[in-house]
Amino acid sequence: MTAPFDLKGFLAQEAERVQAALERALAAVEGTLGPDVAEATRHGVLSGGKRLRPILCVAAYRACGGSEGDAIYDLAASLELIHAYSLMHDDLPCMDDADLRRGRPTTHRAHGEDVTLRAGAALIPAAALQAWRATERLGCPPATRAEVVDTLLTASGADGMVGGQWVDLEAEGKAVTPEDLDGLHRRKTGALLAAALDMGTLAAGAPPEPREAFHRYGRAIGLAFQIADDILDATSTAATLGKNPSDNDLSKSTYVALYGLAEARRRAEGQVGEALAAVQDAGVAAPALEALARYVVARRH
Amino acid sequence: MTAPFDLKGFLAQEAERVQAALERALAAVEGTLGPDVAEATRHGVLSGGKRLRPILCVAAYRACGGSEGDAIYDLAASLELIHAYSLMHDDLPCMDDADLRRGRPTTHRAHGEDVTLRAGAALIPAAALQAWRATERLGCPPATRAEVVDTLLTASGADGMVGGQWVDLEAEGKAVTPEDLDGLHRRKTGALLAAALDMGTLAAGAPPEPREAFHRYGRAIGLAFQIADDILDATSTAATLGKNPSDNDLSKSTYVALYGLAEARRRAEGQVGEALAAVQDAGVAAPALEALARYVVARRH
Repeated sequence: MTAPFDLKGFLAQEAERVQAALERALAAVEGTLGPDVAEATRHGVLSGGKRLRPILCVAAYRACGGSEGDAIYDLAASLELIHAYSLMHDDLPCMDDADLRRGRPTTHRAHGEDVTLRAGAALIPAAALQAWRATERLGCPPATRAEVVDTLLTASGADGMVGGQWVDLEAEGKAVTPEDLDGLHRRKTGALLAAALDMGTLAAGAPPEPREAFHRYGRAIGLAFQIADDILDATSTAATLGKNPSDNDLSKSTYVALYGLAEARRRAEGQVGEALAAVQDAGVAAPALEALARYVVARRH
Repeated sequence: MTAPFDLKGFLAQEAERVQAALERALAAVEGTLGPDVAEATRHGVLSGGKRLRPILCVAAYRACGGSEGDAIYDLAASLELIHAYSLMHDDLPCMDDADLRRGRPTTHRAHGEDVTLRAGAALIPAAALQAWRATERLGCPPATRAEVVDTLLTASGADGMVGGQWVDLEAEGKAVTPEDLDGLHRRKTGALLAAALDMGTLAAGAPPEPREAFHRYGRAIGLAFQIADDILDATSTAATLGKNPSDNDLSKSTYVALYGLAEARRRAEGQVGEALAAVQDAGVAAPALEALARYVVARRH
């Protein structure tokens, strides 16, 4: 019998390597920025957080036989740059008008709305260039490099994250069907999580079968993650959550509102089960991804 | 003696082909958007304008022997998507708070601030994907395709347009040196104009010499364009300009403020001269680019 996977140690160690990659990424950009903007960018990007997207990318890369080294963390960091942009813009007054993010003032509260708008938008091309250059260091062939960047950009755009946020905005205060809600979150949260897996397996040069299986894993934990977020929002205070539980205030449709707490929990567990089955289908050992799937619904914030 | 170049007819015909390419680009994105957001995107992208960046891209491509067809307009349209995003965000309340753009309400006045923020940001990945796919249809080798997209993203990001806008923001109300002002505008306006030329020559597979010469052309007309903008802002009303002459209101540093009207005009002409010299250095016939260089300072809006 093998020892149980040390998820806590794994997450701490991986978050540290992601943090180092983000520091490298920002150092490359900061020379071109004024000091005010550089600080806002650091605030948005280096504000802690779980680093779930980059960690998933690296885990998928390793599970598919990718080599060790810093370059995969540089690729993974591109996902966190996009994620940081989306949070910086989400929190703006014209969107969620949030004061707190991860227990600290949001970027626009600390650095102003105009600077945050710009700093956020500039992270999009920075992320694409970051991914493009990292895949060169990883030795990926040009077609693969292009597919990796395409995957990142598609997940970031109208067909993915941003499209999901739009649907979310338009659904505010309206009745939505369960299918609408799944579709919304598959794009809003799920697209970038699935892209994390896809970018890792692509960079590792994995064959189609494990790539497809890990893609399904990404979609399943994306949905599980969002349901868990809704449950946390419904059961937590700002103090334990480190942000305002704002989705309720804005009377957005949530899984808890639609199904009740018990059924929402059951659905989150169902998605975790699908994710674990996908790892089995991939046919490679991926203890980190199995542990991460369970963590997504077990986390406290 | 050859007939004089028919700039007016050329601009009208080219703008029409760019418009058709933008319609194709939006049609590809709109299926994924809700109707509200699709309308805001159309408002921002199809709001008229000179289409100078795409027209320059196509002209450079043709001057370097690129073939006819729609694909180069699809590539050129990616520049206009980035330009449209920058205008949509520039006009937002937390930036210039503009009511008018090209004689019509700005996108956020017509479609709301939240939708405009999202629609603008989504144009960045859309533009990168648009450029990537167009270079495939143009038959460019993978390394060239990558360089084209890299050029677009670099010009759109912290090292280019957005960086210049930041410097602009930070310079508001402060005394700037002539060198600061040139540097600011080389990035804010010049980066994307130079990228337009670079993308055209790269896509045509031009050798380094004409590519370098056309790059200098792009930088020179970028600066000429900005000086001409300052002159127009200083001498026009909102009615003739189609937008609020807002740079003056916000007491930003302008060439007219720094040098006076006569010297600003002389400097704009000097940059046009440099652009025309660069066309000579390129060693290829480019009557359209010569006419466009003169047009940049002669235009009325």
